[in-house]
Amino acid sequence: MSGIVVRTFERADLDEIAPLAERGVATVHEALGRTGLMASFMRPIWPGASIAGNAVTVTVAPGDNTMLHVVVELCRDGDVVVVAPTSPCEDGYFGDLFGGALKARGVRGTVIEAGCRDVRTLHEMRYPVWSKAVFAQGTVKETLGDVNVPLVCAGRRVEPGDVIVADDDGVLVVPRARIDEALSASLARVNKEAANRARFAAGEVGLDVYGMRDKLAAKGLRYYDDARAYAEGRSS
Amino acid sequence: MSGIVVRTFERADLDEIAPLAERGVATVHEALGRTGLMASFMRPIWPGASIAGNAVTVTVAPGDNTMLHVVVELCRDGDVVVVAPTSPCEDGYFGDLFGGALKARGVRGTVIEAGCRDVRTLHEMRYPVWSKAVFAQGTVKETLGDVNVPLVCAGRRVEPGDVIVADDDGVLVVPRARIDEALSASLARVNKEAANRARFAAGEVGLDVYGMRDKLAAKGLRYYDDARAYAEGRSS
Amino acid sequence: MSGIVVRTFERADLDEIAPLAERGVATVHEALGRTGLMASFMRPIWPGASIAGNAVTVTVAPGDNTMLHVVVELCRDGDVVVVAPTSPCEDGYFGDLFGGALKARGVRGTVIEAGCRDVRTLHEMRYPVWSKAVFAQGTVKETLGDVNVPLVCAGRRVEPGDVIVADDDGVLVVPRARIDEALSASLARVNKEAANRARFAAGEVGLDVYGMRDKLAAKGLRYYDDARAYAEGRSS
Amino acid sequence: MSGIVVRTFERADLDEIAPLAERGVATVHEALGRTGLMASFMRPIWPGASIAGNAVTVTVAPGDNTMLHVVVELCRDGDVVVVAPTSPCEDGYFGDLFGGALKARGVRGTVIEAGCRDVRTLHEMRYPVWSKAVFAQGTVKETLGDVNVPLVCAGRRVEPGDVIVADDDGVLVVPRARIDEALSASLARVNKEAANRARFAAGEVGLDVYGMRDKLAAKGLRYYDDARAYAEGRSS
Amino acid sequence: MSGIVVRTFERADLDEIAPLAERGVATVHEALGRTGLMASFMRPIWPGASIAGNAVTVTVAPGDNTMLHVVVELCRDGDVVVVAPTSPCEDGYFGDLFGGALKARGVRGTVIEAGCRDVRTLHEMRYPVWSKAVFAQGTVKETLGDVNVPLVCAGRRVEPGDVIVADDDGVLVVPRARIDEALSASLARVNKEAANRARFAAGEVGLDVYGMRDKLAAKGLRYYDDARAYAEGRSS
Amino acid sequence: MSGIVVRTFERADLDEIAPLAERGVATVHEALGRTGLMASFMRPIWPGASIAGNAVTVTVAPGDNTMLHVVVELCRDGDVVVVAPTSPCEDGYFGDLFGGALKARGVRGTVIEAGCRDVRTLHEMRYPVWSKAVFAQGTVKETLGDVNVPLVCAGRRVEPGDVIVADDDGVLVVPRARIDEALSASLARVNKEAANRARFAAGEVGLDVYGMRDKLAAKGLRYYDDARAYAEGRSS
Repeated sequence: MSGIVVRTFERADLDEIAPLAERGVATVHEALGRTGLMASFMRPIWPGASIAGNAVTVTVAPGDNTMLHVVVELCRDGDVVVVAPTSPCEDGYFGDLFGGALKARGVRGTVIEAGCRDVRTLHEMRYPVWSKAVFAQGTVKETLGDVNVPLVCAGRRVEPGDVIVADDDGVLVVPRARIDEALSASLARVNKEAANRARFAAGEVGLDVYGMRDKLAAKGLRYYDDARAYAEGRSS
Repeated sequence: MSGIVVRTFERADLDEIAPLAERGVATVHEALGRTGLMASFMRPIWPGASIAGNAVTVTVAPGDNTMLHVVVELCRDGDVVVVAPTSPCEDGYFGDLFGGALKARGVRGTVIEAGCRDVRTLHEMRYPVWSKAVFAQGTVKETLGDVNVPLVCAGRRVEPGDVIVADDDGVLVVPRARIDEALSASLARVNKEAANRARFAAGEVGLDVYGMRDKLAAKGLRYYDDARAYAEGRSS
Repeated sequence: MSGIVVRTFERADLDEIAPLAERGVATVHEALGRTGLMASFMRPIWPGASIAGNAVTVTVAPGDNTMLHVVVELCRDGDVVVVAPTSPCEDGYFGDLFGGALKARGVRGTVIEAGCRDVRTLHEMRYPVWSKAVFAQGTVKETLGDVNVPLVCAGRRVEPGDVIVADDDGVLVVPRARIDEALSASLARVNKEAANRARFAAGEVGLDVYGMRDKLAAKGLRYYDDARAYAEGRSS
Repeated sequence: MSGIVVRTFERADLDEIAPLAERGVATVHEALGRTGLMASFMRPIWPGASIAGNAVTVTVAPGDNTMLHVVVELCRDGDVVVVAPTSPCEDGYFGDLFGGALKARGVRGTVIEAGCRDVRTLHEMRYPVWSKAVFAQGTVKETLGDVNVPLVCAGRRVEPGDVIVADDDGVLVVPRARIDEALSASLARVNKEAANRARFAAGEVGLDVYGMRDKLAAKGLRYYDDARAYAEGRSS
Repeated sequence: MSGIVVRTFERADLDEIAPLAERGVATVHEALGRTGLMASFMRPIWPGASIAGNAVTVTVAPGDNTMLHVVVELCRDGDVVVVAPTSPCEDGYFGDLFGGALKARGVRGTVIEAGCRDVRTLHEMRYPVWSKAVFAQGTVKETLGDVNVPLVCAGRRVEPGDVIVADDDGVLVVPRARIDEALSASLARVNKEAANRARFAAGEVGLDVYGMRDKLAAKGLRYYDDARAYAEGRSS
Repeated sequence: MSGIVVRTFERADLDEIAPLAERGVATVHEALGRTGLMASFMRPIWPGASIAGNAVTVTVAPGDNTMLHVVVELCRDGDVVVVAPTSPCEDGYFGDLFGGALKARGVRGTVIEAGCRDVRTLHEMRYPVWSKAVFAQGTVKETLGDVNVPLVCAGRRVEPGDVIVADDDGVLVVPRARIDEALSASLARVNKEAANRARFAAGEVGLDVYGMRDKLAAKGLRYYDDARAYAEGRSS
């Protein structure tokens, strides 16, 4: 069934999605109703990168990086290459040669549910990768996969043209149809959080900022002055 | 059963326990007879922090950060917030809003057997967290837990008022009743190690510094000059 | 059966093997036909170190560091201490005292399929360790193991005198009998990669650099202009 | 965003898909080009069950089984309930009360990327469950999820009306659009395997049955009579 | 610090706690407000056992079964031996010799956060064990631990004389002070579940049995007839 | 480097090694000084099998079962096929076709640090497999490995002609050079255990059978009548 390469897809405007990188994974994830996050084992190979870009999708056979070679020439400025093996594998599919070639094409980073190698060089060239493992294990070039066909990476469905947001907190998938919502809702959240931050900075606590006290009392929250009061059942 | 909030407990004097942070987890752990260490999956979200403080304990339902909002106003200077979910969960309960609010109250750090997010911001504000995962996954506010009731976090029992020591080597629980012992025994150990370090620096090895040679010979340690001697059974 | 200590073995010339550290784990691993890599869970406790040295091998009982004390005086300039527990254990066998003693003897680093502690101090003294865990858990001195007998560490056989190459990508074992091959093949690879890098830098892609296009077409790779073309079966 | 319940969807004819259960996961998976398999951590709570049915999909909040109560009355004869938590959780969402209620409605089994409990009773009533864990941990009823909306379970996308095939080898998702292909290709495979089995039973080996000898020789396979011949480079 | 052996403690009456075994882990766990469950990696080495008994607690050094020898003569009819290593270890501390000796003393089973071996023989003699691993790795007899001192096993605090309930769903700790509550609340739960079961058997669903419909509607649950209705926003 | 097939090697006499299967993994492992055990994640796909046989070794590329086809015709009565992937992989390399072909040649079982499928059929035909996973994921036939070359499987070195002992407790490697020792030492151990069993059956405990009391007292074991006595420091 494999061996399919779809050359193009509809990409989001890069200026339009740029704020998503700035607002970050945690905020945009909340803005989308807490959906779309890849598994927590997807970690950056170096800290501090923050990106948003259009997903190019690649499936690879276990231990076989053929399709990474196929995808390079199809990438454009602002893309993020999302790679999923067809069965679990942590081999080092991705290294500095790919990083250099993709960076030259303006690719923002790579998200791979497998291994990455040459991590020091990739760090030096400031090419960010989120991966499941760091592993120098090499790969062969024998078996086909697919390019720009929907896949599941680290527990999340990704279609070509979805927007990927990634930073030190992890990797988020924003479906193409929800980009506008992600932008507006994350802006609203940033504004709201700014207001909340001011209240927190003034010493208020979440119980008041979010109006939780009555609700918690109704659920049965009981305060005791100390352990002895609790042992004696003297709530206060 | 949940919904219990105990407001206060006996806290250790901060000046008194400060040396524990300086001596570090490995040393104090040895001083306490190698007890009290949390599991190795508890890792700092940024390197270099070293703290000692009074444990405030919080249990949270899976995917629900209600009780973190409850605990903030109960925290004091020198506290360490210890959080355990009531069943295994790696959601990102803790982020920069909590970090800012707790830091403003003088809290030394957070220890959470679950996920943390906003790790870059937390690093920038120098608020240390030891967690099981970095995960942006958000939480709800529906279900009660307990505050300042004994719990188990990462394999160790923690009571409110126990002293938490944490650094790049992990997280240690010093029971309140053993604080004096921890202080005196760790001081003795530091002094003894200083003496040993001098001997090591002068080129001596542990076999002599710790007087192990005879004991090991009695246990049957045999030396061979090389692999051939070993193959031929010629110990020396 | 344990309690065997073999004092010496044939070591490689340090000047001769120095290029392996410079070329790095990923390159030398490829040069050896993609063999010899330890499991990906072996991670450096601090980033940036790159070493090559002669393996000194040590087996230790679970939770018992006796044999680390035994091995110190047998180490020489350019050695790498490789430690494997006789059953899985992540205790903190190795700390700054050992690091200091070994560094003073010219040892290049430690590779341990178990835990390491005092990681901040080890970083400050620039002594590199690759380990399975960071864990402050202390050990006892009761049970014997072996020194300089072949062992398996993190899935790879290591004999005393094999060359260990380690950097941020992981840990590689070069069998003594293949050191010359590792040197020549990695040099050839570095030269070939330099040529390839020039072509990549000029904008070529791997499909052309490695002559893959015809081979992939023969395997059935099909291109489609976009998702609609694919749905309609119009390859191009 | 959650709280969506879609009551119905197009279901496959049960007689039509029955052969998929008989042919089994491994065979149908091969027939579909080796796609659609859930992760290997999805294991049956008791051995020997083999099912095929129409997927009913349910997302649940961590530690919250609300939506399992919602889905029961929507299930029909021949359905398979597929449950995915919105963040990783192994709580015991599913037990004998649900099993009894679903069995009474003709449901074939449950596939849940979380925990199951009451496993002995479920075994006694012959209700099969494939789960990530067996865990008695109870759940609350506070937070909404979705029913019959596409989800990802154990690494695979599932849409309502996809066909689930499950047995002791694991869990397979057959997309609704590929049911016919799954039926015809698995039948072809069964027939071909029967022919092959006859040849294997007559003592032939795969190298001949699959015509692999020339291809392997071309790839460089070399035979040596024994280890000495190999050491001396005398292939044969 | 170790080397403490406490000979006796207050034990619960065996007839009194017998119903807990019959009601099972899931039911008693619910009756205690969903507290006290050990981690899900604690699995029975053979299926079908169901026990309740008084906890005898044992800590063991990694790879060292000394204290299991110490505890045998202190065990009585109806006890359950709970074993926790002082640092993580999966060695096969427990085998058929221990099983036979304990069974002869009336011990109900062993709970060990480590490895078990001789599992076929233990099954044949019907001695149940819940363990973290099955592993034949042997142990030494060099280092002391403690007997009948509180410990943490698989994430739960256990004191000598707590009641352990274990079956195919896992292992539950009932604190001694809550035994009466566990008995009465689990009986109430069994009775209530019997009533619910009758309603479920008559075809009712949990939404009605537990009165959830209004509450869910208030939380925003929306029904749609099918995917098209949902896409068009036509709830019903 | 791969593509090497060594046809034959020196095999142990099957009658001679048969007692090892009967004595079992735990006993023979002890007899060999507690060495040679594969990792605990190697589990039987069905319980109750107990084998001993001559190791045939096979390395396979990730997701590629080419070499399993190569090895079949080289197998003889009494062999055990040991399979290790060249990088970690859990694909279902081994299924009922291989099982049937090998069983017909008298092969005793398969040990594979990867996945197995068709487990129900393999159970029905009583062909035992010890594997890391049960996973239906299929494999390709593109890349060479080696046959009858030393490898590491599940953490243990295996050479062709080593003896493999496997049962419900796991998998043990007996080096060819130590077969006689394994036979004699395991016989001695069985005899000694029989004597010990008689003493245990008569009610003695290990403290006396193994003469541990004085040694433990010397190490500092202290007995206390109950918790109060311990708290008051009254050992007895």
